[in-house]
Amino acid sequence: MTRLAVIGLGLIGGSLARALRAAGRVSHIAAYDRDPEQGRRGLELGVIDRFAGDAASSARDADVVVLAVPVLHTAEAAEAVRAGLSDRTILMDVGSTKVSVLGDITRVFGDLPARFVAAHPIAGTEKSGVAASRSELFRGHRVVLTPHAGQDPGALATVRSLWESVGARVVEMDAACHDAIFAATSHLPHVLAYAFVDMLTRLPNAADIFPNAGGGFRDFTRIASSSPEMWHDIVRANRVEVTGLLERQIGELQELLALMKDERWPELLMRFERARAARERHLSQIE
Amino acid sequence: MTRLAVIGLGLIGGSLARALRAAGRVSHIAAYDRDPEQGRRGLELGVIDRFAGDAASSARDADVVVLAVPVLHTAEAAEAVRAGLSDRTILMDVGSTKVSVLGDITRVFGDLPARFVAAHPIAGTEKSGVAASRSELFRGHRVVLTPHAGQDPGALATVRSLWESVGARVVEMDAACHDAIFAATSHLPHVLAYAFVDMLTRLPNAADIFPNAGGGFRDFTRIASSSPEMWHDIVRANRVEVTGLLERQIGELQELLALMKDERWPELLMRFERARAARERHLSQIE
Repeated sequence: MTRLAVIGLGLIGGSLARALRAAGRVSHIAAYDRDPEQGRRGLELGVIDRFAGDAASSARDADVVVLAVPVLHTAEAAEAVRAGLSDRTILMDVGSTKVSVLGDITRVFGDLPARFVAAHPIAGTEKSGVAASRSELFRGHRVVLTPHAGQDPGALATVRSLWESVGARVVEMDAACHDAIFAATSHLPHVLAYAFVDMLTRLPNAADIFPNAGGGFRDFTRIASSSPEMWHDIVRANRVEVTGLLERQIGELQELLALMKDERWPELLMRFERARAARERHLSQIE
Repeated sequence: MTRLAVIGLGLIGGSLARALRAAGRVSHIAAYDRDPEQGRRGLELGVIDRFAGDAASSARDADVVVLAVPVLHTAEAAEAVRAGLSDRTILMDVGSTKVSVLGDITRVFGDLPARFVAAHPIAGTEKSGVAASRSELFRGHRVVLTPHAGQDPGALATVRSLWESVGARVVEMDAACHDAIFAATSHLPHVLAYAFVDMLTRLPNAADIFPNAGGGFRDFTRIASSSPEMWHDIVRANRVEVTGLLERQIGELQELLALMKDERWPELLMRFERARAARERHLSQIE
């Protein structure tokens, strides 16, 4: 049985707490959040057992400490929790970018602690906060671990086992490779969805547009309801990959615009067909 | 009781046939499609009563004839069905663009027939074909009618009543206004979704990308599984509105790219916040 501490009690931290409790893997859950309201809700909902006044005291006596903060707060959270960690404590993050997190942890500790495990659960919703957390959030979803050179095998095995106990499928990959892949599957789509809705709000007929939106619009823009702070942090933390892909996307759109203006319709149709075929071919792989 | 003829037996034509039958509004349903396989499936599934060898003979004796073809086939379908129409026949389309349809119908008939009613149901899925049709497709969704100057009020009332009987909420607007609105809510998002997936297929690490896509990706790209031919037709038929918005969208993305490159992060966050707030504010209006 594990004693868990969650630093940052939001959707992911709260859901992991609920899921590990439901799986019977934790004996005690402490938490810290800079927003006391999250703590109050977490206690009220039975998600956590104790809300601490600071990060370090929430981590004291914990076997596993999870940093579940927006990625740009990783260094600050690690620094704050540091005094509460023992030699045995496993420290894990759940951030959507991995190169920046490994860099932040290295800066705080002087090197990458053997018992630090970098994790990224590929699960979430556009909702935020502990009130939106649920124990089934990770079931059937991937969790990517990006082990580092000095990784303690026991810590890695424990983290893998915890995620598997909540129904996740654990895969391992290199941190840089992770950031390139998730810039494409997740970070860029968020930028594109925000940009699309933002463009609409600036149109002269904006007031007529939203009432006439249908199901396609709702799904296409769902991720534009995600936490702006969280996604600002992710884009900023992974800016080299995201800007590279955004440039490619602008290039693709300029090509499509030229096809439309030059009335090269068969080529436009070919692009649509290629996209549909790729999505359909890979659909079974999408969780 | 109405005798119905459906020209183009796909998702929308098939669903309207099923829905009107379920509502007890039709006594007989004939259909024509250039693909005999759709006719065979339509008969097998009980969606239609008769599959005709040509469009005009399917329309003979019908009270209401529905053109449910990709929008660029409107003129061809109207021409083909023309000999089967009487003075009493109501002719309706279900196309996603309205200015082009009114132009096509005018060219075929020499003017806009009083008993032609332009309609656009804001419903659909990314699936195609009569096998994907379902009687509940329109329930709770909007149908936009764009009446023209010489519109027969009785034909308009009949069409309104048919859509309401299948659970749709009917609104009326000007055709040009319709095309500007739906370029924003529907046509451009399809172009953006196709362009995004197409860009990914051209990346060197494309094979690693799709298996790591999650729920956000799935929803954001769902409309990229829509019929390429149908959306090619819509974009082409509404190219002035769509290219204008695509230019705006490229401009928005270039602004975001500049914010990222210049590290003007608070401004990026402000854009994300503005987009999220707009979507959340209007969410209750989205069907």
